[in-house]
Formats: sequence, structure tokens, C-alpha cells
Amino acid sequence: MNISMIRYILGKVALVIGVIMLIPCICAMCYQEKEGITYVIVASSLMLAGFLIALVKPANTTIYLKEGLVSTSMSWILMSICGALPMFLTGEIPGFIDALFESASGFTTTGASVVNNVEGLSHTTLMWRSTTHLIGGMGVLVFLLALLPTKGGSQVNLMKAESPGPVVGKLVPKLRQTAKILYFIYLGLTALEAIFLLLGGYSLFEAVNTAFATAGTGGFGIRNDSLASYSLYGKWVVAIFMILFGVNFNFYYFLIMRQFRKSFEMGEVRTYLLIILASTAVIAVNICHMYSSLGMTITDSFFQVASIITTTGFSTTNFDCWPTLSRLILLGLMFCGACAGSTGGGIKVSRLMIGSKTLGKQFSLLLHPKNIKKIQSDGKAIDHDTVRSVNTFFVAFMTVYILSVLAVAIEGRDIVTTISSVAATINNIGPGLSEVGPAFNFSGFTILSKLVFIFDMLAGRLELFPILILFHPMLYRNIAASAKTDYIDPIKSR
Amino acid sequence: MNISMIRYILGKVALVIGVIMLIPCICAMCYQEKEGITYVIVASSLMLAGFLIALVKPANTTIYLKEGLVSTSMSWILMSICGALPMFLTGEIPGFIDALFESASGFTTTGASVVNNVEGLSHTTLMWRSTTHLIGGMGVLVFLLALLPTKGGSQVNLMKAESPGPVVGKLVPKLRQTAKILYFIYLGLTALEAIFLLLGGYSLFEAVNTAFATAGTGGFGIRNDSLASYSLYGKWVVAIFMILFGVNFNFYYFLIMRQFRKSFEMGEVRTYLLIILASTAVIAVNICHMYSSLGMTITDSFFQVASIITTTGFSTTNFDCWPTLSRLILLGLMFCGACAGSTGGGIKVSRLMIGSKTLGKQFSLLLHPKNIKKIQSDGKAIDHDTVRSVNTFFVAFMTVYILSVLAVAIEGRDIVTTISSVAATINNIGPGLSEVGPAFNFSGFTILSKLVFIFDMLAGRLELFPILILFHPMLYRNIAASAKTDYIDPIKSR
Repeated sequence: MNISMIRYILGKVALVIGVIMLIPCICAMCYQEKEGITYVIVASSLMLAGFLIALVKPANTTIYLKEGLVSTSMSWILMSICGALPMFLTGEIPGFIDALFESASGFTTTGASVVNNVEGLSHTTLMWRSTTHLIGGMGVLVFLLALLPTKGGSQVNLMKAESPGPVVGKLVPKLRQTAKILYFIYLGLTALEAIFLLLGGYSLFEAVNTAFATAGTGGFGIRNDSLASYSLYGKWVVAIFMILFGVNFNFYYFLIMRQFRKSFEMGEVRTYLLIILASTAVIAVNICHMYSSLGMTITDSFFQVASIITTTGFSTTNFDCWPTLSRLILLGLMFCGACAGSTGGGIKVSRLMIGSKTLGKQFSLLLHPKNIKKIQSDGKAIDHDTVRSVNTFFVAFMTVYILSVLAVAIEGRDIVTTISSVAATINNIGPGLSEVGPAFNFSGFTILSKLVFIFDMLAGRLELFPILILFHPMLYRNIAASAKTDYIDPIKSR
Repeated sequence: MNISMIRYILGKVALVIGVIMLIPCICAMCYQEKEGITYVIVASSLMLAGFLIALVKPANTTIYLKEGLVSTSMSWILMSICGALPMFLTGEIPGFIDALFESASGFTTTGASVVNNVEGLSHTTLMWRSTTHLIGGMGVLVFLLALLPTKGGSQVNLMKAESPGPVVGKLVPKLRQTAKILYFIYLGLTALEAIFLLLGGYSLFEAVNTAFATAGTGGFGIRNDSLASYSLYGKWVVAIFMILFGVNFNFYYFLIMRQFRKSFEMGEVRTYLLIILASTAVIAVNICHMYSSLGMTITDSFFQVASIITTTGFSTTNFDCWPTLSRLILLGLMFCGACAGSTGGGIKVSRLMIGSKTLGKQFSLLLHPKNIKKIQSDGKAIDHDTVRSVNTFFVAFMTVYILSVLAVAIEGRDIVTTISSVAATINNIGPGLSEVGPAFNFSGFTILSKLVFIFDMLAGRLELFPILILFHPMLYRNIAASAKTDYIDPIKSR
């Protein structure tokens, strides 16, 4: 285990978080808010600490998969703690676990909140919450890769651990270039949404915050009613951008490269859009008796489907009042999630597609036992390792989900609250059903449940394994063994 | 596709069902009930029809896997329809879909009922309901295999399709012998339970019915309160026998062969008992504030855990009034199910063990990518095909579960009722939670939902693929192709 390299990466992460915390500081200057002082102090402390920790670059910069996993999970835990500090120190979120929940919810782009009165928060803190979404959406390590000059091919292990989806495709041979292209598309789309919202008459502050929260598919709003009071235009702009951010970013890369055919042949994107259309149609029929106009029915059902499948979690209506079928479809979409390689959470459409293809293969094996075919995706055969990793993902996911549900059940809230609160956090949605529906928040839970939710949000965002591996005894035997080797090495090298 | 062989098997099944229907006829004679006339007529019609259909033995008796799957699912659909006839014709269950539900629930050993007043049914029909459990528990095709002289090794494909669990182990080289041993253990344990109940002062009728319903892990009771009014002795006898019937029958075979070590080294059985003990302990702690005595707390929690994990579905208390944690543990146990090779339903402990072992393998691959090991079970490596079939089983199971939940959700009942009613039928339990809790039954659902439940019960009992394959277009292309071949064959053979 290359511990020095992990130390180095964590230092860089602290430095980056410190720099990014200057965004709310600028906001504080504009609005003359005293909270800015706390943010400046925390930001400069982080920059200093990060600079010092990352001062000495390790001699051996090789990162194997295990180092990639560990440094990713450690980075995200560090980010969550750093992000909680200013919210806790300004006193806007009095409990530290609450602040940690809010910060983890921000970085993991969950958007679940413990704040009862969002409109009572300072502009500075609101800006910081949205900024955590923006950073969390694309990932801070991808950001680091885009900035830092990288050597060797081993950095792909960092990106593998942080990027969502079963396969990590490099768009171009150079990883740094790939990371830059991804950030370019990401920030470009974000800017575009902000411009559209400005054109709709929203303030610069609101447009930027909403765009940041949409970009990361986060869902922190700056109004108490989320987006219910938005105009029809505003709702449709946000709905469409949510869907755009849930698309596999390779799609945009192919568009930019003018490989239109490749773009539109992506099976995952087509399935994703199909699921959105089908779910919207069924929900619209199911809820139409509750609305007076067809326009509002379609707007609300489309917005809510887009918000849940992309795991953003904005709401324009209290969908917890909808009939059982609609609520169960939304619960299902929470698990489905968006495309791999997007900023959305959940299981991901491509995993579900691979799962259903293995099912198809099993059927043809039952009917023609000698007819062995490899599963295909977009014309390419999917290798055995990918299929296995998808299957183990399902198993790991269900295991974490069930254990979390049982832990939260100790509180004794109703079953729908219990199962949907865990679904809403592990899939990085935000709101769930019943007592965690859009009209409520997570403030009333016990510390134990909040810790479970924080764990689930991080596990969900990093797709389980980077976080789960921290609990595997083999890792610590590995560290102990490598500490020994490091100690022996200098003697050997004499 | 060997259609003549499927025809032949279906004829034999009808014949067997007709013969078995003589059991309630005998009961009718003892109690002088007029319902017996209907049963005698139906039984003799079935015997006659079955005899005629199976009169001509096909020249080619080869059964490939696909024929095994199709004839299994067709047999079970036929059994359900035949079993429904007398209940419908006596007028005791007025609607045919209701009678079909009750019959499918019996044969699949689910034990969910549409009868509001069980005590109002005739002894004949009560006996018939219990008998369907007895037949369904071990499987009618296994029964056929035990009776009929079999030639060639292809009959294992029949047993594969009907027996629960990821691997079908032949106990002895001869399949017929294996089937006989299984039935010997099964009926022996059933008789033993009946004797224990007789010793506890229960009537012969009650002892036999309860023993039949326990043996098949079915759960049809002959009292309206299920087993709530049983004595402490009666509850413990039934609880222990439920657990015994949930054990992999290989365990008993090894015991009989005096291979005690092999018995007690079975990982699945140990895990199964461990889950029972752990769940009982947690539930007991969780519900103890609702009881005045420790004895009753432990009795009820142990009984309910045993009843749900073995998918029997008897109840001694309204567990739907228990706290959320206990109810969610029971919901989890519904999916867990008993051991493979037992009479219980659900996903099966061995599948969950293989699933968690693939997870362990993935972890060690992440930490040591070059260290490729095969997954082991009881000291033997599990082959790749088994792992794949377990994984596809999970995918198929979740697909059927989710689609069924959405179909039942159209009714608009509450979420807990919707998700637990499907869980209770697909896992062959019987009672669920909320409106399908132990205090209620399935009579109020719409025809659509009842058809979904019937499908789920059959799919759950046959472990999905035999039923699902009936919906696969490739099967019909296959049948069409083979019909063509059959037609050409005689010309060729000239």
C-alpha cells in the first residue's frame, strides 16, 4: 500500500477544497455577510494544511487499484468533514453531525437536508451548499486529474474509483485530456442553464445556485418549497437540464467530435430516455384526476420523473400525495438512476441493461444449451469481468441497503419512511416518501440514523466498493505488511 | 420440442391428481359430507382423462432441459386448475378465479387464502387444501419419478425444473431411488409431526391437516385464528417441525446413512439455523415491551421467525402490530427463505450464500487483482454455471417482483400492502403486512391482482424460469420448428 501517495492526494484535496471555498467567500463580499469571515478562515486553514501535507511529493507515484479505492474514499470523507466545518462554525447548523450530514449530502449530490428553514440561511452558506453539488457531481479527483500534470497510466485507478458506472471509458488516450473534456462539457452545460434561468427573470444568485444544484444532480434548493413556486418556463428549463446532466457524457463528447451517429446509437441513452417517457406517461394518467389542467399534469409528472431518475431531488409538488402506483414508480426510479458516466446516482441504466441481458442469455441457454454467446452492448461484446462486477454490485448494493434499512428501523418510524429514506440517501436522491417526503426533511432522525445516512450517501456516490473496502480486514493486513516493507526498503537499497 | 412426451407427462399428472383427490373423498365418507360427491366425480373424471391422455406412450422419451421446464410449468398450471374444480363446483368458493387462487396457493405451498371464514368450509375441502400442500411441497413430478419406472438419464431435467435451489444433487446414482428416499423422509417427518400433535390432544383431523400444511411449508390452517389458540406445546411442536422441513433434505439423508459428520458440516443448514436464532433474538428484544412474560415473547418471536423463513405462514399472533424493525426483519426473511432442497420457498439460503461469496471474491480481487480463486461451498468449488444461474436468478426475481408490484399498485392500496402482498406470494409465504397481515386475507383484491398473485405463486414455487420461459418467443419458434420436423420425420424414416 503506497501510503505516502494517499497522503499526497489527501493534501491536494484539502488544498482544492480550500480554494473552492473562496466561491462562497466572494458571495459573502457581495452580500456583506459576516459569515464570510468564518469561510475565509476555514478556507485559508485548509489551503495551508493541504499545502504542507502535499509539500513532499512521494518518490513512488504508482497507484494500484487498491490505492485508488482507498484514496478516493478517504478524500470524500475528508471533503465531507471540511465542508461541514464552516456551516458548523458559523452556527447556521448547530450540531456537527447535522453539518456533516448536510456537507456529505452536498458533495455526494444527494440534496437531503436537515435545515428546516432554508430561506433563513445566509447567501454565503447557500452558495457553499450549491458549490459542493457542483464539485461532487463530476468528482474532485477527476478535477485534480484535470489540473495536475500526471505521469504514467496508473492514475486511471483514481478515476475508476470515483466515476459512476460499470466501465470507465477514456475518451482520448490521455487521461488528463479526458478529465479536461469532461469538465469543459460539465461547466459549459452549467453556464448554459444559468443563462436560460437568467433569461427567465431569475436573479443571478438564484440562477447560479439552481444551475449548480442541477449540474451535480444534487437538489439543494434556496427556497423552502424547492421549485414549486417556479414559473412554468423555469420548471421546464430545470427539468430538461436535469435530464441532460443524467446523460452519459460520452454522448456530448461524440456530439462535439461531430460523430453524431455514434451519439445516437448509444443504447444506454436511448433506454434512459425511454424510461423517462414511459414513466411520465403512466404517472400522468395515474394523477390526472388530481389536476384541473393537462399542462400542469404533464409538467409535474415530467419534472418529478426527471428529478428522481437523475437523482436530483428537486420537487415542484408534494408527490407523496400521489396514488400508490405513481409513488412506487418514483421509488423504482430512485434505484434505477441515470446513465453511467453522468453526474447522476442510483444503480445506473447501463447496469440494469447488462443485468437484463444476462437474463436473456440465460433463457437462450435454457432453450439451446450449446448456443453460448457473449452479451453485447452497442455492438461490442461485454467481457466477463464487467458482467461479474455488475452482479457483485447488485449483491453489495442490496446488502448495504438491507442492513441500512434495519439500522434505521430501530427508530421505529413507519415502514415507508424507513425504506424510502435509505433509498433516497443510498441513491443520492434527497427526498423520499412519507416522513421524508418533499414536504419534510431529515432533521428529526437520531444520530445513529444520520450516521447511517451519511455512510449510505458516500457509499452510493462512490458506488460502494471504495467505501466498503475500508471495512475489509484484508486491507489492514495489507497496510501492515506494506508498512513493514517500507521500513525494510531503505536497508535493502543500501 | 418433444410435444408427445409433454402430453404424456400431463396425462400422468392428471391421473395422479385424480388419485390423490381420493384422500378428501375418504374424509367426506368419515364426516358424511355431501361435498364428497363432487370430489368423487372430479377425481374419477381426472383419472379417466389422465388415463386416456397418457395411454399411448411416446416412442421418443427423451426430455431435454426445455421439455423439462415446459412440462413442469404446464403440470403445475394443470394441477392448479384441477385442484380448483371441486372447490368451485361445491360452491364453497363461488368465483372460479378465487378457487384457482386457493388451489394455486395450496399446491405452491403459499397458504394465502381468499376464504373469510375457514371454519365454515367442509372437512372435505379443508382436507383437500391441506393435501395440496403435501403434494406441492415435494413436487408432483418428483412423485411421478418415484412411482414410474424411468429409462435413460434425461428425467433429471424434470427434477431440475421442479426442485428448489441452485444445484440439484442426486443422492444416489439412480434418480428414481433418490425420489423415493426424498418421499420417504418427507412422509416420515409428516407422520412424526402428526403423532406429536395427537399426543398433545389434538383431533386426528386437526393433527393430519396441520402436519400436511407444515410438511409442505404451506400454512393453510383449519381455524380462523391460524395457530393463535394452540397450546404452548402445540406451538412449539409446529415451530420445530416447520424448521425441520426448511432444512435441506440431504441433511436427513446423510443422517440416515450415518454420515453424521457430513450432515453437520453443511454450511447452508448452519447458516439457516444461525439466521433463525439471530432474528428470533432481535425480534424478542424488540417486542418484549408488548408482552408480560418472557416465555410468550420467545414463543411468539421464535414461532413467527420459523413460520416466515420456512415460508409456511402460520401465525400465533398478529405480527403486523409489531414495531417496524421486527416487521422489516420478517419482510427480509420472506425473501431469504429456507434451505435449497427443502420444501420451503423464497430465494433460498444457499443462493444468498453464493451471492455473498461472490462479493467476498470481488473484494479480494480489488485488493489482489492477480489472486483468482474459485468460490467454494462445503469444500467444493462452485462452478461458473452455478454462479451465473444464481446471479440471473436474482435479476429474474427482482424483475418479476417489481413488475408484479407495479401491477398490483394499480389498485391503489397502501405501499406496505402492495409490496408485502407480492412478497408473500412470490416467496410462497401466505400472510404479508398491513391489509394482507395475519388478521386479513386476499379476498378483497381485484381479479387482475389475483391473477398476478397466482402467476407469482407459481413462478416462485418453480423458481421462475419454468414459468417465465412460457413467455419467451424463442420457445414458440422452437415448437413451430419441431412440429415441422415431426411432420417430415415419417417421410425420412421410410
